[in-house]
Amino acid sequence: MPRYKLTVAYDGTNFHGWQKQQSSTVSDEPVAAEPTPEIRTVQGVLEQAIRETVREPVRILGASRTDARVHALGQVAAFTTTREIPVDRLPQAISSRLPEDVQVRAAEIVSESFSPISDCIAKGYRYRIAHDVLQRRQQPLFDRHFTFWTPYELDVVTMNDAARRLIGEHDFASFTRVAHGRDSTIRTVFNCQVEQQKAGHCYIDISGNGFLYNMVRIIAGTLVDVGRGQIEPERIAEILNANDRAAAGPTLPPEGLCLRWIKYRT
Amino acid sequence: MPRYKLTVAYDGTNFHGWQKQQSSTVSDEPVAAEPTPEIRTVQGVLEQAIRETVREPVRILGASRTDARVHALGQVAAFTTTREIPVDRLPQAISSRLPEDVQVRAAEIVSESFSPISDCIAKGYRYRIAHDVLQRRQQPLFDRHFTFWTPYELDVVTMNDAARRLIGEHDFASFTRVAHGRDSTIRTVFNCQVEQQKAGHCYIDISGNGFLYNMVRIIAGTLVDVGRGQIEPERIAEILNANDRAAAGPTLPPEGLCLRWIKYRT
Repeated sequence: MPRYKLTVAYDGTNFHGWQKQQSSTVSDEPVAAEPTPEIRTVQGVLEQAIRETVREPVRILGASRTDARVHALGQVAAFTTTREIPVDRLPQAISSRLPEDVQVRAAEIVSESFSPISDCIAKGYRYRIAHDVLQRRQQPLFDRHFTFWTPYELDVVTMNDAARRLIGEHDFASFTRVAHGRDSTIRTVFNCQVEQQKAGHCYIDISGNGFLYNMVRIIAGTLVDVGRGQIEPERIAEILNANDRAAAGPTLPPEGLCLRWIKYRT
Repeated sequence: MPRYKLTVAYDGTNFHGWQKQQSSTVSDEPVAAEPTPEIRTVQGVLEQAIRETVREPVRILGASRTDARVHALGQVAAFTTTREIPVDRLPQAISSRLPEDVQVRAAEIVSESFSPISDCIAKGYRYRIAHDVLQRRQQPLFDRHFTFWTPYELDVVTMNDAARRLIGEHDFASFTRVAHGRDSTIRTVFNCQVEQQKAGHCYIDISGNGFLYNMVRIIAGTLVDVGRGQIEPERIAEILNANDRAAAGPTLPPEGLCLRWIKYRT
Protein backbone atom coordinates (compact mmCIF):
# COMPACT_ATOMS: atom_id res chain seq x y z
CA MET A 1 0.00 0.00 0.00
CA PRO A 2 1.38 3.45 -0.89
CA ARG A 3 2.58 5.67 1.95
CA TYR A 4 2.56 9.44 1.54
CA LYS A 5 4.66 12.07 3.30
CA LEU A 6 3.05 15.52 3.56
CA THR A 7 4.60 18.87 4.41
CA VAL A 8 2.00 20.82 6.36
CA ALA A 9 1.79 24.51 7.31
CA TYR A 10 -0.65 25.92 9.84
CA ASP A 11 -1.56 28.95 11.84
CA GLY A 12 -1.81 27.38 15.30
CA THR A 13 -3.84 30.23 16.84
CA ASN A 14 -7.17 28.45 16.76
CA PHE A 15 -5.92 24.89 17.30
CA HIS A 16 -5.50 22.94 20.50
CA GLY A 17 -2.20 21.74 19.13
CA TRP A 18 -1.32 19.05 16.66
CA GLN A 19 -2.46 15.92 18.40
CA LYS A 20 -6.00 14.61 18.43
CA GLN A 21 -7.47 14.76 21.91
CA GLN A 22 -8.79 11.23 21.90
CA SER A 23 -7.52 7.67 21.91
CA SER A 24 -4.30 7.66 19.92
CA THR A 25 -4.42 3.95 19.18
CA VAL A 26 -4.92 2.99 15.58
CA SER A 27 -8.42 1.72 15.00
CA ASP A 28 -10.41 0.35 12.12
CA GLU A 29 -13.39 2.44 13.02
CA PRO A 30 -14.23 5.29 10.68
CA VAL A 31 -12.61 8.57 11.63
CA ALA A 32 -15.00 10.73 13.64
CA ALA A 33 -16.68 13.67 11.98
CA GLU A 34 -15.16 17.17 12.25
CA PRO A 35 -13.96 17.52 15.86
CA THR A 36 -15.95 19.85 18.06
CA PRO A 37 -14.43 23.34 18.44
CA GLU A 38 -13.32 22.56 22.01
CA ILE A 39 -10.82 19.98 20.78
CA ARG A 40 -10.02 21.31 17.33
CA THR A 41 -6.61 19.87 16.45
CA VAL A 42 -4.50 20.00 13.29
CA GLN A 43 -4.33 16.22 13.14
CA GLY A 44 -8.11 16.04 13.43
CA VAL A 45 -8.91 18.45 10.60
CA LEU A 46 -6.13 17.01 8.43
CA GLU A 47 -7.33 13.41 8.83
CA GLN A 48 -10.82 14.55 7.94
CA ALA A 49 -9.62 16.31 4.76
CA ILE A 50 -7.47 13.34 3.72
CA ARG A 51 -10.38 11.01 4.33
CA GLU A 52 -12.55 13.10 2.01
CA THR A 53 -9.75 13.04 -0.57
CA VAL A 54 -8.91 9.33 -0.56
CA ARG A 55 -12.43 8.25 0.44
CA GLU A 56 -11.36 5.94 3.21
CA PRO A 57 -10.46 6.45 6.86
CA VAL A 58 -6.79 7.24 7.48
CA ARG A 59 -4.65 7.71 10.54
CA ILE A 60 -1.77 10.16 10.15
CA LEU A 61 1.42 10.28 12.16
CA GLY A 62 2.98 13.70 12.73
CA ALA A 63 6.67 14.37 13.30
CA SER A 64 6.13 16.88 16.08
CA ARG A 65 3.32 17.28 18.60
CA THR A 66 3.16 21.04 18.53
CA ASP A 67 1.29 22.68 21.40
CA ALA A 68 -1.80 24.86 21.21
CA ARG A 69 -1.10 28.17 19.40
CA VAL A 70 2.29 26.99 18.08
CA HIS A 71 2.62 27.47 14.30
CA ALA A 72 4.23 25.37 11.59
CA LEU A 73 5.60 26.02 8.13
CA GLY A 74 7.13 22.56 7.70
CA GLN A 75 5.42 20.02 9.92
CA VAL A 76 5.68 16.53 8.41
CA ALA A 77 2.96 13.90 8.55
CA ALA A 78 2.60 10.49 6.90
CA PHE A 79 -0.28 8.17 6.11
CA THR A 80 -0.85 4.91 4.31
CA THR A 81 -3.85 4.29 2.10
CA THR A 82 -5.07 1.61 -0.26
CA ARG A 83 -5.70 4.27 -2.92
CA GLU A 84 -3.17 5.40 -5.49
CA ILE A 85 -3.34 9.18 -5.84
CA PRO A 86 -1.25 11.26 -8.28
CA VAL A 87 1.22 12.76 -5.84
CA ASP A 88 1.60 16.05 -7.72
CA ARG A 89 -2.10 16.77 -7.29
CA LEU A 90 -2.30 15.65 -3.66
CA PRO A 91 -1.37 18.97 -1.92
CA GLN A 92 -4.03 20.93 -3.78
CA ALA A 93 -6.62 18.13 -3.46
CA ILE A 94 -6.24 17.95 0.33
CA SER A 95 -5.80 21.72 0.84
CA SER A 96 -9.05 22.46 -0.97
CA ARG A 97 -10.81 20.43 1.74
CA LEU A 98 -8.97 22.11 4.62
CA PRO A 99 -9.98 25.19 6.61
CA GLU A 100 -8.06 28.38 5.78
CA ASP A 101 -5.59 27.95 8.67
CA VAL A 102 -4.02 24.69 7.42
CA GLN A 103 -2.31 23.98 4.10
CA VAL A 104 -0.61 20.94 2.63
CA ARG A 105 2.43 22.40 0.88
CA ALA A 106 4.09 19.29 -0.56
CA ALA A 107 3.58 15.55 -0.90
CA GLU A 108 5.80 12.64 -1.85
CA ILE A 109 5.62 8.86 -1.89
CA VAL A 110 7.81 7.24 0.75
CA SER A 111 8.63 3.68 1.75
CA GLU A 112 6.03 1.74 3.73
CA SER A 113 8.34 1.83 6.74
CA PHE A 114 8.83 5.62 6.75
CA SER A 115 8.32 7.16 10.20
CA PRO A 116 8.09 10.97 10.48
CA ILE A 117 9.34 10.65 14.05
CA SER A 118 12.17 8.12 14.08
CA ASP A 119 13.58 8.88 10.62
CA CYS A 120 13.97 12.57 11.42
CA ILE A 121 17.57 13.81 11.58
CA ALA A 122 17.06 17.55 12.21
CA LYS A 123 14.38 20.11 13.01
CA GLY A 124 14.44 23.88 12.76
CA TYR A 125 12.35 26.27 14.86
CA ARG A 126 12.00 30.05 14.93
CA TYR A 127 10.87 32.03 17.97
CA ARG A 128 9.76 35.60 17.17
CA ILE A 129 10.06 38.40 19.70
CA ALA A 130 8.91 42.03 19.65
CA HIS A 131 10.64 44.20 22.21
CA ASP A 132 9.97 47.72 23.19
CA VAL A 133 12.71 49.97 21.91
CA LEU A 134 11.09 53.21 22.97
CA GLN A 135 9.37 52.06 26.16
CA ARG A 136 6.04 53.03 24.64
CA ARG A 137 4.46 49.81 25.90
CA GLN A 138 3.03 49.24 22.46
CA GLN A 139 2.28 45.60 21.89
CA PRO A 140 2.22 44.12 18.38
CA LEU A 141 -1.21 44.38 16.77
CA PHE A 142 -1.29 42.64 13.38
CA ASP A 143 1.51 40.26 14.46
CA ARG A 144 0.18 39.46 17.90
CA HIS A 145 -0.62 35.81 17.20
CA PHE A 146 2.89 35.19 15.84
CA THR A 147 5.13 37.17 18.17
CA PHE A 148 5.96 37.25 21.87
CA TRP A 149 6.04 40.77 23.21
CA THR A 150 8.25 42.01 26.00
CA PRO A 151 8.16 45.59 27.31
CA TYR A 152 11.98 45.58 27.78
CA GLU A 153 14.78 46.54 25.46
CA LEU A 154 16.85 43.55 24.39
CA ASP A 155 20.55 43.45 23.56
CA VAL A 156 20.76 41.13 20.57
CA VAL A 157 24.57 40.96 20.61
CA THR A 158 24.60 39.61 24.17
CA MET A 159 21.76 37.22 23.32
CA ASN A 160 23.86 35.83 20.46
CA ASP A 161 26.81 35.37 22.81
CA ALA A 162 24.58 33.22 25.03
CA ALA A 163 22.90 31.46 22.09
CA ARG A 164 26.13 30.07 20.66
CA ARG A 165 27.00 28.54 24.05
CA LEU A 166 23.98 26.25 23.62
CA ILE A 167 25.33 24.79 20.36
CA GLY A 168 26.62 21.21 20.63
CA GLU A 169 25.68 18.03 22.48
CA HIS A 170 24.46 18.81 25.99
CA ASP A 171 22.17 17.50 28.66
CA PHE A 172 19.22 19.90 28.29
CA ALA A 173 17.45 18.78 31.50
CA SER A 174 17.45 22.42 32.70
CA PHE A 175 15.59 23.36 29.52
CA THR A 176 12.55 21.11 29.75
CA ARG A 177 9.72 20.85 32.18
CA VAL A 178 10.30 18.62 35.18
CA ALA A 179 7.88 15.91 34.04
CA HIS A 180 9.32 15.57 30.55
CA GLY A 181 8.68 11.84 30.20
CA ARG A 182 11.84 11.12 28.21
CA ASP A 183 14.57 8.61 29.03
CA SER A 184 17.39 10.86 27.97
CA THR A 185 17.61 14.63 28.06
CA ILE A 186 20.76 14.72 25.93
CA ARG A 187 20.27 16.49 22.61
CA THR A 188 22.49 18.11 20.02
CA VAL A 189 21.84 21.71 18.98
CA PHE A 190 23.31 22.30 15.52
CA ASN A 191 22.73 26.02 15.40
CA CYS A 192 21.27 28.72 17.62
CA GLN A 193 21.36 32.39 16.68
CA VAL A 194 19.44 35.59 17.21
CA GLU A 195 18.71 37.88 14.27
CA GLN A 196 17.61 41.48 14.49
CA GLN A 197 14.83 41.75 11.92
CA LYS A 198 13.98 45.42 12.23
CA ALA A 199 13.83 47.92 15.11
CA GLY A 200 12.12 46.21 18.02
CA HIS A 201 11.82 42.84 16.30
CA CYS A 202 14.16 39.87 16.53
CA TYR A 203 13.91 36.12 16.21
CA ILE A 204 15.80 33.10 17.50
CA ASP A 205 16.58 30.40 14.94
CA ILE A 206 17.46 27.06 16.44
CA SER A 207 18.04 23.64 14.90
CA GLY A 208 18.96 20.31 16.42
CA ASN A 209 18.58 16.56 16.22
CA GLY A 210 15.59 16.68 18.56
CA PHE A 211 13.94 18.88 21.14
CA LEU A 212 12.57 18.16 24.60
CA TYR A 213 9.15 19.32 25.70
CA ASN A 214 9.11 23.16 25.91
CA MET A 215 12.85 23.24 25.15
CA VAL A 216 12.72 25.98 22.51
CA ARG A 217 10.36 28.12 24.59
CA ILE A 218 12.60 27.82 27.69
CA ILE A 219 15.72 28.59 25.63
CA ALA A 220 13.89 31.64 24.26
CA GLY A 221 12.93 32.71 27.79
CA THR A 222 16.53 32.32 28.93
CA LEU A 223 17.87 34.32 25.97
CA VAL A 224 15.34 37.10 26.66
CA ASP A 225 16.57 37.22 30.26
CA VAL A 226 20.10 37.52 28.86
CA GLY A 227 18.98 40.29 26.50
CA ARG A 228 17.46 42.21 29.41
CA GLY A 229 20.68 41.90 31.39
CA GLN A 230 19.28 39.55 34.02
CA ILE A 231 21.49 36.58 33.09
CA GLU A 232 25.13 36.89 32.03
CA PRO A 233 25.92 34.93 28.82
CA GLU A 234 28.77 33.21 30.71
CA ARG A 235 26.20 31.57 32.99
CA ILE A 236 24.81 29.36 30.19
CA ALA A 237 27.32 26.55 30.91
CA GLU A 238 26.38 26.68 34.58
CA ILE A 239 22.64 26.49 33.74
CA LEU A 240 23.28 23.48 31.47
CA ASN A 241 25.32 21.76 34.18
CA ALA A 242 22.69 22.36 36.85
CA ASN A 243 20.26 19.82 35.32
CA ASP A 244 17.60 21.86 37.07
CA ARG A 245 14.64 23.52 35.39
CA ALA A 246 14.76 26.32 37.99
CA ALA A 247 18.21 27.38 36.77
CA ALA A 248 16.95 28.47 33.33
CA GLY A 249 14.67 31.35 32.35
CA PRO A 250 10.87 31.29 31.97
CA THR A 251 8.91 29.31 29.38
CA LEU A 252 7.80 31.86 26.81
CA PRO A 253 4.25 31.61 25.45
CA PRO A 254 3.46 29.39 22.44
CA GLU A 255 2.44 32.05 19.91
CA GLY A 256 6.03 33.14 19.15
CA LEU A 257 7.05 29.62 18.12
CA CYS A 258 7.05 28.20 14.60
CA LEU A 259 8.26 24.77 13.44
CA ARG A 260 10.02 25.75 10.22
CA TRP A 261 11.44 22.55 8.75
CA ILE A 262 12.25 18.90 9.37
CA LYS A 263 15.01 16.96 7.62
CA TYR A 264 15.08 13.21 6.95
CA ARG A 265 17.78 10.79 5.92
CA THR A 266 17.59 10.48 2.16
CA MET B 1 -15.07 71.01 28.02
CA PRO B 2 -11.86 69.38 26.75
CA ARG B 3 -11.96 67.57 23.40
CA TYR B 4 -9.52 64.76 22.69
CA LYS B 5 -8.23 63.47 19.38
CA LEU B 6 -7.15 59.83 19.36
CA THR B 7 -5.08 57.89 16.85
CA VAL B 8 -6.44 54.37 16.76
CA ALA B 9 -5.04 51.13 15.28
CA TYR B 10 -7.05 47.96 14.81
CA ASP B 11 -7.07 44.55 13.26
CA GLY B 12 -10.44 44.68 11.49
CA THR B 13 -10.75 40.90 11.06
CA ASN B 14 -13.25 40.37 13.85
CA PHE B 15 -15.10 43.68 13.58
CA HIS B 16 -18.20 44.57 11.64
CA GLY B 17 -16.46 47.75 10.63
CA TRP B 18 -15.95 51.01 12.45
CA GLN B 19 -19.44 52.30 12.87
CA LYS B 20 -21.84 51.26 15.59
CA GLN B 21 -24.77 49.34 14.17
CA GLN B 22 -27.39 51.35 15.98
CA SER B 23 -28.85 54.82 16.05
CA SER B 24 -26.04 57.22 15.23
CA THR B 25 -27.71 60.25 16.76
CA VAL B 26 -26.09 61.70 19.84
CA SER B 27 -28.05 60.82 22.92
CA ASP B 28 -27.86 61.49 26.62
CA GLU B 29 -28.62 57.89 27.46
CA PRO B 30 -25.80 55.85 28.89
CA VAL B 31 -23.78 54.01 26.29
CA ALA B 32 -24.97 50.42 25.93
CA ALA B 33 -22.89 47.65 27.48
CA GLU B 34 -20.34 45.76 25.36
CA PRO B 35 -21.99 45.19 21.97
CA THR B 36 -23.08 41.65 21.25
CA PRO B 37 -20.64 39.69 19.05
CA GLU B 38 -23.03 39.91 16.08
CA ILE B 39 -22.54 43.68 15.88
CA ARG B 40 -19.05 44.07 17.30
CA THR B 41 -17.74 47.38 15.97
CA VAL B 42 -14.56 49.36 16.67
CA GLN B 43 -16.58 52.43 17.65
CA GLY B 44 -18.59 50.31 20.08
CA VAL B 45 -15.64 48.76 21.92
CA LEU B 46 -13.74 52.06 21.90
CA GLU B 47 -16.65 54.05 23.38
CA GLN B 48 -16.98 51.40 26.06
CA ALA B 49 -13.25 51.59 26.96
CA ILE B 50 -13.28 55.41 27.00
CA ARG B 51 -16.38 55.37 29.16
CA GLU B 52 -14.59 53.14 31.68
CA THR B 53 -11.60 55.48 31.56
CA VAL B 54 -13.37 58.84 31.96
CA ARG B 55 -16.28 57.37 33.95
CA GLU B 56 -19.01 59.01 31.95
CA PRO B 57 -20.76 58.16 28.70
CA VAL B 58 -19.04 59.47 25.57
CA ARG B 59 -19.86 59.54 21.91
CA ILE B 60 -16.89 59.39 19.55
CA LEU B 61 -16.75 60.58 15.98
CA GLY B 62 -14.43 58.68 13.63
CA ALA B 63 -12.75 60.13 10.54
CA SER B 64 -13.42 57.14 8.35
CA ARG B 65 -16.18 54.52 8.45
CA THR B 66 -14.01 51.55 7.58
CA ASP B 67 -15.86 48.43 6.45
CA ALA B 68 -15.88 45.03 8.11
CA ARG B 69 -12.43 43.36 7.99
CA VAL B 70 -10.65 46.58 6.90
CA HIS B 71 -7.68 47.44 9.14
CA ALA B 72 -6.33 50.72 10.45
CA LEU B 73 -3.00 51.94 11.73
CA GLY B 74 -3.99 55.60 11.89
CA GLN B 75 -7.76 55.98 12.22
CA VAL B 76 -8.64 59.23 13.99
CA ALA B 77 -11.49 59.67 16.44
CA ALA B 78 -12.52 62.54 18.72
CA PHE B 79 -14.64 62.89 21.84
CA THR B 80 -15.57 65.57 24.33
CA THR B 81 -15.80 64.91 28.04
CA THR B 82 -16.31 66.93 31.20
CA ARG B 83 -13.25 65.22 32.75
CA GLU B 84 -9.72 66.51 32.48
CA ILE B 85 -7.35 63.60 31.84
CA PRO B 86 -3.54 63.85 31.55
CA VAL B 87 -3.20 63.46 27.80
CA ASP B 88 0.15 61.65 27.96
CA ARG B 89 -1.41 58.84 29.99
CA LEU B 90 -4.60 58.59 27.92
CA PRO B 91 -3.44 56.11 25.21
CA GLN B 92 -2.26 53.56 27.78
CA ALA B 93 -5.27 54.14 30.04
CA ILE B 94 -7.76 53.47 27.26
CA SER B 95 -5.72 50.68 25.60
CA SER B 96 -5.55 48.72 28.86
CA ARG B 97 -9.37 48.54 28.73
CA LEU B 98 -9.51 47.52 25.06
CA PRO B 99 -9.53 44.02 23.57
CA GLU B 100 -6.26 42.89 21.98
CA ASP B 101 -7.33 43.85 18.45
CA VAL B 102 -7.66 47.62 19.10
CA GLN B 103 -5.04 50.05 20.40
CA VAL B 104 -5.03 53.77 21.06
CA ARG B 105 -1.62 54.87 19.81
CA ALA B 106 -1.68 58.63 20.47
CA ALA B 107 -3.85 61.31 22.06
CA GLU B 108 -3.89 65.10 21.97
CA ILE B 109 -6.14 67.92 23.10
CA VAL B 110 -7.88 69.70 20.25
CA SER B 111 -10.23 72.66 19.95
CA GLU B 112 -13.86 72.13 20.87
CA SER B 113 -14.82 72.55 17.22
CA PHE B 114 -12.41 69.90 15.88
CA SER B 115 -14.08 67.49 13.46
CA PRO B 116 -12.17 64.34 12.41
CA ILE B 117 -14.22 64.32 9.20
CA SER B 118 -14.43 67.90 7.94
CA ASP B 119 -11.00 69.07 9.14
CA CYS B 120 -9.22 66.23 7.35
CA ILE B 121 -6.97 67.32 4.48
CA ALA B 122 -5.47 63.97 3.38
CA LYS B 123 -5.73 60.23 3.98
CA GLY B 124 -3.36 57.43 3.10
CA TYR B 125 -4.33 53.81 2.44
CA ARG B 126 -2.36 50.68 1.64
CA TYR B 127 -3.76 47.67 -0.21
CA ARG B 128 -1.66 44.50 0.14
CA ILE B 129 -1.62 41.81 -2.54
CA ALA B 130 -0.01 38.38 -2.69
CA HIS B 131 0.30 37.01 -6.19
CA ASP B 132 1.37 33.65 -7.36
CA VAL B 133 4.78 33.88 -8.93
CA LEU B 134 5.22 30.16 -9.43
CA GLN B 135 1.60 29.18 -10.13
CA ARG B 136 1.67 26.92 -7.09
CA ARG B 137 -1.77 28.15 -6.02
CA GLN B 138 -0.43 28.72 -2.56
CA GLN B 139 -2.50 31.24 -0.67
CA PRO B 140 -1.03 33.28 2.18
CA LEU B 141 -1.36 31.54 5.52
CA PHE B 142 -0.09 33.74 8.36
CA ASP B 143 -0.91 36.91 6.36
CA ARG B 144 -4.31 35.81 5.11
CA HIS B 145 -6.32 38.36 7.13
CA PHE B 146 -4.14 41.22 5.84
CA THR B 147 -3.55 40.36 2.19
CA PHE B 148 -5.62 39.76 -0.92
CA TRP B 149 -4.46 36.73 -2.85
CA THR B 150 -4.61 36.29 -6.59
CA PRO B 151 -3.46 33.12 -8.37
CA TYR B 152 -2.05 35.19 -11.27
CA GLU B 153 1.35 36.70 -11.86
CA LEU B 154 1.27 40.50 -11.72
CA ASP B 155 3.46 42.92 -13.65
CA VAL B 156 4.23 45.66 -11.12
CA VAL B 157 5.83 47.97 -13.69
CA THR B 158 2.65 48.04 -15.78
CA MET B 159 0.56 48.49 -12.65
CA ASN B 160 2.63 51.55 -11.74
CA ASP B 161 2.13 52.95 -15.22
CA ALA B 162 -1.64 52.72 -14.66
CA ALA B 163 -1.42 53.91 -11.04
CA ARG B 164 0.21 57.22 -11.88
CA ARG B 165 -2.58 57.98 -14.39
CA LEU B 166 -4.99 58.13 -11.42
CA ILE B 167 -3.01 60.92 -9.73
CA GLY B 168 -4.67 64.34 -9.83
CA GLU B 169 -8.18 65.75 -9.63
CA HIS B 170 -10.66 63.50 -11.41
CA ASP B 171 -14.28 62.45 -11.33
CA PHE B 172 -13.99 59.00 -9.73
CA ALA B 173 -17.60 57.97 -10.43
CA SER B 174 -16.30 54.83 -12.21
CA PHE B 175 -14.46 53.89 -9.03
CA THR B 176 -17.30 53.82 -6.52
CA ARG B 177 -20.40 51.74 -6.21
CA VAL B 178 -23.44 52.97 -8.07
CA ALA B 179 -25.37 53.98 -4.94
CA HIS B 180 -22.54 56.03 -3.43
CA GLY B 181 -24.77 58.63 -1.77
CA ARG B 182 -22.39 61.56 -2.34
CA ASP B 183 -23.15 64.82 -4.08
CA SER B 184 -19.84 65.00 -5.86
CA THR B 185 -17.61 62.20 -7.08
CA ILE B 186 -14.69 64.52 -7.77
CA ARG B 187 -11.64 63.78 -5.64
CA THR B 188 -7.92 64.52 -5.80
CA VAL B 189 -5.45 61.65 -5.60
CA PHE B 190 -2.10 62.99 -4.38
CA ASN B 191 -0.13 59.83 -4.91
CA CYS B 192 -0.72 56.29 -6.15
CA GLN B 193 2.06 53.78 -6.54
CA VAL B 194 2.69 50.06 -6.46
CA GLU B 195 5.68 48.69 -4.55
CA GLN B 196 7.13 45.22 -4.91
CA GLN B 197 7.75 44.11 -1.35
CA LYS B 198 9.28 40.70 -1.97
CA ALA B 199 8.70 37.91 -4.49
CA GLY B 200 4.96 37.45 -4.86
CA HIS B 201 4.05 40.34 -2.59
CA CYS B 202 3.24 43.91 -3.53
CA TYR B 203 1.18 46.74 -2.15
CA ILE B 204 -0.60 49.80 -3.52
CA ASP B 205 -0.08 53.03 -1.57
CA ILE B 206 -2.63 55.71 -2.32
CA SER B 207 -3.30 59.09 -0.76
CA GLY B 208 -5.82 61.79 -1.53
CA ASN B 209 -8.05 64.50 -0.14
CA GLY B 210 -10.92 62.05 0.25
CA PHE B 211 -12.15 58.70 -0.98
CA LEU B 212 -15.52 57.52 -2.23
CA TYR B 213 -17.16 54.36 -0.97
CA ASN B 214 -15.08 51.32 -2.09
CA MET B 215 -12.82 53.63 -4.13
CA VAL B 216 -9.50 52.14 -2.95
CA ARG B 217 -10.76 48.58 -3.35
CA ILE B 218 -12.01 49.26 -6.91
CA ILE B 219 -8.74 51.02 -7.83
CA ALA B 220 -6.87 47.98 -6.45
CA GLY B 221 -9.09 45.64 -8.50
CA THR B 222 -8.46 47.70 -11.63
CA LEU B 223 -4.68 47.75 -11.05
CA VAL B 224 -4.68 43.95 -10.53
CA ASP B 225 -6.50 43.59 -13.86
CA VAL B 226 -3.76 45.78 -15.38
CA GLY B 227 -1.06 43.64 -13.73
CA ARG B 228 -2.62 40.49 -15.22
CA GLY B 229 -2.66 42.05 -18.68
CA GLN B 230 -6.44 42.35 -18.91
CA ILE B 231 -6.53 46.16 -18.98
CA GLU B 232 -3.98 48.31 -20.80
CA PRO B 233 -2.59 51.16 -18.62
CA GLU B 234 -3.56 53.59 -21.39
CA ARG B 235 -7.22 52.75 -20.78
CA ILE B 236 -7.24 54.42 -17.31
CA ALA B 237 -8.20 57.84 -18.80
CA GLU B 238 -11.05 56.20 -20.70
CA ILE B 239 -12.28 54.42 -17.55
CA LEU B 240 -12.21 57.73 -15.62
CA ASN B 241 -14.10 59.50 -18.41
CA ALA B 242 -16.75 56.78 -18.62
CA ASN B 243 -18.30 57.75 -15.23
CA ASP B 244 -19.52 54.17 -15.18
CA ARG B 245 -18.76 51.64 -12.45
CA ALA B 246 -18.85 48.85 -15.06
CA ALA B 247 -15.83 50.35 -16.84
CA ALA B 248 -13.44 49.70 -13.92
CA GLY B 249 -12.15 46.44 -12.44
CA PRO B 250 -13.66 44.41 -9.59
CA THR B 251 -13.96 45.53 -5.96
CA LEU B 252 -11.24 43.62 -4.11
CA PRO B 253 -12.08 42.14 -0.69
CA PRO B 254 -11.69 44.22 2.48
CA GLU B 255 -8.90 42.28 4.21
CA GLY B 256 -6.13 43.71 1.98
CA LEU B 257 -7.01 47.28 2.93
CA CYS B 258 -5.45 49.34 5.71
CA LEU B 259 -6.10 52.99 6.60
CA ARG B 260 -2.55 54.14 7.35
CA TRP B 261 -2.76 57.83 8.23
CA ILE B 262 -4.94 60.93 8.22
CA LYS B 263 -3.62 64.50 8.05
CA TYR B 264 -5.32 67.60 9.47
CA ARG B 265 -4.83 71.31 8.96
CA THR B 266 -2.59 72.51 11.76
